[in-house]
Amino acid sequence: MTEKPPADAVYRNASETTEARIADLINRMTVEEKVAQVTAVWADKKRMYLNGQGFNPDSAAILMPHGIGHITRPSELAGPPAPGRSGAEQVVYLNAVQRWLVEETRLGIPALAHEESLHGLAAKNATSWGQPIAVAATFNRDLTRQLYATAARQAASRGAHVVLTPVVDVARDPRWGRVEETLGEDPYLAGQLGLQAVLGFQGDDAKWDPGEVFATLKHMAGHGEPEGGNNIAPANISERTLREVFLHPFRYIVQKTPVRNIMASYNEVNGVPSHANAWMLNDLLRDTWGYQGAVVSDYFAVRELADRHAVAANWQEAAILAISAGVDIELPDREAYPSLVEAVHSGALKESILNTAVGRILQQKFDRGLFEDPYLDPAGALETTSADRALVRRAGSEGMILLKNNGVLPLGDEVKTLAIIGPNADKLLLGGYSDQPDTFVTVRAGLEAAFSARNLSTVYAEGVRVTEAGSWYLDPVVAVPESEDRLRIAAAVSAVRNADLIVLAVGGNELTSREAWAEGHLGDRPTLELPGLQNELIDALAATGKPIVGLVFGGRPLDIRNLTEKSDAVFQCFYLGQETGNSVADVLLGTVDPGGRLPISIPRSAGHIPAYYNYKPTARRGYLFDDASAAWPFGYGLSYTTFTISPPTLTAASATTAAEVSVSVTVTNSGTRAGFEVVQLYIRDKVSSVTRPVKELKGFEKIYLEPGASQTVTFPLGQEQLEFLGPGMRWIVEPGEFEIMVGSSSRDEDLGKVTFTLTE
Amino acid sequence: MTEKPPADAVYRNASETTEARIADLINRMTVEEKVAQVTAVWADKKRMYLNGQGFNPDSAAILMPHGIGHITRPSELAGPPAPGRSGAEQVVYLNAVQRWLVEETRLGIPALAHEESLHGLAAKNATSWGQPIAVAATFNRDLTRQLYATAARQAASRGAHVVLTPVVDVARDPRWGRVEETLGEDPYLAGQLGLQAVLGFQGDDAKWDPGEVFATLKHMAGHGEPEGGNNIAPANISERTLREVFLHPFRYIVQKTPVRNIMASYNEVNGVPSHANAWMLNDLLRDTWGYQGAVVSDYFAVRELADRHAVAANWQEAAILAISAGVDIELPDREAYPSLVEAVHSGALKESILNTAVGRILQQKFDRGLFEDPYLDPAGALETTSADRALVRRAGSEGMILLKNNGVLPLGDEVKTLAIIGPNADKLLLGGYSDQPDTFVTVRAGLEAAFSARNLSTVYAEGVRVTEAGSWYLDPVVAVPESEDRLRIAAAVSAVRNADLIVLAVGGNELTSREAWAEGHLGDRPTLELPGLQNELIDALAATGKPIVGLVFGGRPLDIRNLTEKSDAVFQCFYLGQETGNSVADVLLGTVDPGGRLPISIPRSAGHIPAYYNYKPTARRGYLFDDASAAWPFGYGLSYTTFTISPPTLTAASATTAAEVSVSVTVTNSGTRAGFEVVQLYIRDKVSSVTRPVKELKGFEKIYLEPGASQTVTFPLGQEQLEFLGPGMRWIVEPGEFEIMVGSSSRDEDLGKVTFTLTE
Repeated sequence: MTEKPPADAVYRNASETTEARIADLINRMTVEEKVAQVTAVWADKKRMYLNGQGFNPDSAAILMPHGIGHITRPSELAGPPAPGRSGAEQVVYLNAVQRWLVEETRLGIPALAHEESLHGLAAKNATSWGQPIAVAATFNRDLTRQLYATAARQAASRGAHVVLTPVVDVARDPRWGRVEETLGEDPYLAGQLGLQAVLGFQGDDAKWDPGEVFATLKHMAGHGEPEGGNNIAPANISERTLREVFLHPFRYIVQKTPVRNIMASYNEVNGVPSHANAWMLNDLLRDTWGYQGAVVSDYFAVRELADRHAVAANWQEAAILAISAGVDIELPDREAYPSLVEAVHSGALKESILNTAVGRILQQKFDRGLFEDPYLDPAGALETTSADRALVRRAGSEGMILLKNNGVLPLGDEVKTLAIIGPNADKLLLGGYSDQPDTFVTVRAGLEAAFSARNLSTVYAEGVRVTEAGSWYLDPVVAVPESEDRLRIAAAVSAVRNADLIVLAVGGNELTSREAWAEGHLGDRPTLELPGLQNELIDALAATGKPIVGLVFGGRPLDIRNLTEKSDAVFQCFYLGQETGNSVADVLLGTVDPGGRLPISIPRSAGHIPAYYNYKPTARRGYLFDDASAAWPFGYGLSYTTFTISPPTLTAASATTAAEVSVSVTVTNSGTRAGFEVVQLYIRDKVSSVTRPVKELKGFEKIYLEPGASQTVTFPLGQEQLEFLGPGMRWIVEPGEFEIMVGSSSRDEDLGKVTFTLTE
Repeated sequence: MTEKPPADAVYRNASETTEARIADLINRMTVEEKVAQVTAVWADKKRMYLNGQGFNPDSAAILMPHGIGHITRPSELAGPPAPGRSGAEQVVYLNAVQRWLVEETRLGIPALAHEESLHGLAAKNATSWGQPIAVAATFNRDLTRQLYATAARQAASRGAHVVLTPVVDVARDPRWGRVEETLGEDPYLAGQLGLQAVLGFQGDDAKWDPGEVFATLKHMAGHGEPEGGNNIAPANISERTLREVFLHPFRYIVQKTPVRNIMASYNEVNGVPSHANAWMLNDLLRDTWGYQGAVVSDYFAVRELADRHAVAANWQEAAILAISAGVDIELPDREAYPSLVEAVHSGALKESILNTAVGRILQQKFDRGLFEDPYLDPAGALETTSADRALVRRAGSEGMILLKNNGVLPLGDEVKTLAIIGPNADKLLLGGYSDQPDTFVTVRAGLEAAFSARNLSTVYAEGVRVTEAGSWYLDPVVAVPESEDRLRIAAAVSAVRNADLIVLAVGGNELTSREAWAEGHLGDRPTLELPGLQNELIDALAATGKPIVGLVFGGRPLDIRNLTEKSDAVFQCFYLGQETGNSVADVLLGTVDPGGRLPISIPRSAGHIPAYYNYKPTARRGYLFDDASAAWPFGYGLSYTTFTISPPTLTAASATTAAEVSVSVTVTNSGTRAGFEVVQLYIRDKVSSVTRPVKELKGFEKIYLEPGASQTVTFPLGQEQLEFLGPGMRWIVEPGEFEIMVGSSSRDEDLGKVTFTLTE
């Protein structure tokens, strides 16, 4: 070990350029110190000996004597289960970590701390809104940004600098347990809302401001259509599908804003695991797109190059592969990358490659101002406020997708006694990547409060269970004994006897759809049927003749044909966040119009997968005794009111891309209530040099209109809307005819059409 | 029109080289005459006006005034339904066609006639064996060659010169209706048996000999894993999967023998329809592999570049795309390619491209000797012989895959009365691409004959129907009224009352699994469940307590878990050919040991697709409340006897590829009956620069051993077994460890293992 650098070293001087400070610092670093910067330590005491709540300098001296790149999830007290540290406890802890690093390591480099923030900061008493699939259902850009800005403020106030969010994977297989984490099946929608999440975290410019954190786009790429729906399985896709569909949100967001981090994905494409994919992470992402940020590994994914993919013989080979492919830091813990010290010494890894990675990590530390001040005031740690909860409540109602309504909704005065039934009616429903919020309003609690406020009565019965025991998304799963469920069904039928209407909350839960990591915790399914005896419950309740309003919760589309047939109204809800019951009450009682539209097609069954709407013209020829279309298509969702949308009109029927042509429709609320419409633009290139999808979303606007009111919605038709990857894998726009479709869902019958001709 | 060439023109002179004759002829041809050679005329009178049975010169003068490349399916009298022309009628007809072409067209170029020969020549009274999926189940190279040589003799004797066979698509999605046409899910198996089919058609050398016809490998490429199992849908695969899996049989066979034709596939890969894929058909197939034959279009596929894929604005653009991509002739009829005349005149197509295609068609005409003698003797037209039927009978029993046997089989003397039940028990079961053979022995007929010969009795009941009405694979499908099936079930239960054992023939039929072309004829399914009320029939029969032997027919793997649970023995049969009932009787009575092994994994359900055994290490992490493995794995199948297979031994534990290392096992019949074993070699590259499957078939040998007898089976381990497509998409062999697995199926528990180390 050499001596500490002088106090006036360039890297310590805030008046020097960041470039000069990084160069100076790297120049002073030993190989050990460099490698330390591309590794992380998980604050969980079980793995890390940082001693839980408190900070243990003895452990630190063992774990990070040469400094550290990231501190992983400081909010976790000792790993699952929740809750973890309070915000103030976390700040105290992180201050101690930073102080130790600054004072006790030779170079005094503070750490970046990263957290999960999939649907709100995953930390005690932080705000927890609906899963991203329900955020996507809002089709609301501003709302999305507001939500993620909430997490940014809370995370920043608690000492986190990086969040491993947003997920912009395109979800094309509902068997996969991580569908809930995504913004749905459409690359454009994922790009639009993923961008808003990044802006919510990072703000509009490259500069860090208080209340902001650095975002992480993940997972690059192809994670959302794993073979057989099995998590981490290969993405069986062509290069064109990879680039046009799965990479679209990454490319779009990288071009629109200086996002700081991108996480590589677990899966392989074309035989190459993403963490070893130098073409994707260096050539395409950096050289072609001009990405300037860091690439972080997914948890444990570097060593899995050896352990799972077998493209490396051992962890050192895996580390050399990953860092050479452009993975700058290994998360969550020191596994494979520590071996890079020896790899540099032996010549197996060029030090220049390590230097590049180190520079990208240091860049964030300098940009974040950590060298100037890595400490925070514990008193400033934010918890959920009533305003946050109101935002979550609104997001919940805007994410509720009304699939059917025979007129029973909104509930009128004739419902004097409401039956609240079902396995998801009185359950904490947060989905994965959650800590415990301060409050959670179940469907039952929300409806009971609303009915009680009107002096109306409610009854409740569980009906059946989705799974036995286990209330947290990390618990093992246990199937429900059928005999017990049959007793519950009988009790539910008995309970509804005097009710005027049944609200029936069914679906999946955190144990039937989740990221799998071990036997007993598998969340991928080979069927989309409602788990357990839920269909028996539906049949038994339907047999009573009472009106039924179905609510479908859970992380993935399910086969709800039976429920829909036997109900008077049905909502697809996914997960609506900590205000679930209030959001549901707002919508059922008509205080709020249901604002959600399907961000993912609901297939008829698992055998109908894939069911995405943006298929190629040859892809849905038809099935024997069945239909190849989706049960409910992308973009679909009803309002309580009705809208008319005028035929689309072009500013010019033919033009060049430079001509700034646009297409407009006039939307009129033709009903008697105010409500939401999501106006959607789809495009089809009618003849092209490679095959094109039958339609692709290229614009949307969510509007809210009073009865009788009209609004004109205009979408541009330019390069961004018309381009595709041509024969030479270059983005091109080809002259010729385009079908321009505007309407209320991806279904043909919901779309008005006009032809636009692009001239040379 | 210019004048007829002189009688001593070079192209008419058999002593000139073929190269010189082709050059001379092309030099004399008008554009119209050239384009005529790259088109075909379907002999079907409905389309072609060649007037059915007879030859109509007036029609010929309209349809092929400048000659013609191919005559399509001369065996068909007027299109479906069968039967078509007899062999002698066909020869008379073709002789007239050839005579007219020779005498009435300016250049006098005879035509090539092509036929279908998927599982025997598809012509009246020709031999019809089991569908290719059942041929693949035999794992028998010699038998495969013998079968296809039978078709070659019959086709040649009837005037056909080209057969559009074999199908070497790798079938990876059982929802797809054309699974029956394939040699299964394994590229090595399809390559091995596809090669034998080609040798059966063409013989060992490049020279045409009497009794031989020119084969056609199809469909290139990716047809066997269409999106959603929907026929002609995109193949969602990476370039590596395309080349290693789907193209393997094509590459292997092209390298091993001068196959004359390859047919492009309907589907697209990476946005490029195969008929427009110049990279695949020109660069890879011809320039890289050195293929010298012709590429033919699939039926209607050229115009579908415009009509379905929308990569061409009209049929002329489609034709230019296809011929430029290397598709030498359009089948089955004059649709898009006739527009190439105008395309050459306008300069849209270079005449040199047309010349190249014409040359490839003419090459086959010269090589076949048509310019010297295009006529045949009608008396020489072959029909099925008793020897042919005996071969089909043997192939049927060798293709029967015994999945379960609790000891009930082979049937003993205690079965005095046999109940023959089920929708497939007394049905013509040929599968697609069939004409009518002279005889067909149903399961019922075969078992009745066998039992009658032993003075034992049988009873029969239909039980349920798979589909209503329709007996031919081209008929529209009609679902069965459930009420009628319930009566049939009751009748079946009654019928078995006095039986000692039930043979229950269930599954699909030609109407539930087939190549789809229109509404009412769709053969792709989103479920693998037994169609109709077959499971109710199974349950009802099982409730009688009688022993059950299940026979599963049909074109695709089905979910037969219920059948297997409730039966004492179960066979997967697919389609066994015109001797079905005799093959079944031979096996059930123990005259013949069941010789089949699964050429395709049987998934647990449609939601478990894909279920192929040669998956990547990350692909089968597991499902909630279910299993991600196949219900029955590739290579699996029981014998009536038992075998022991010794641990595999290497001639050298480590060596270079040049060292001619081999691996051997000793197989011993440890039971009391003679029987078949299929010894299978699988290989796994333990660490490699791109991910490799957990196992890949690289060798197999089918052996037949008397009780107590032993045989040593040896497989080479060389470049062919160890190579893969490396990071640069070049075939490489990497030093390191390989797991060498030898045993009786692809299941781990059926394999002995040894490690081989490849040195630099």
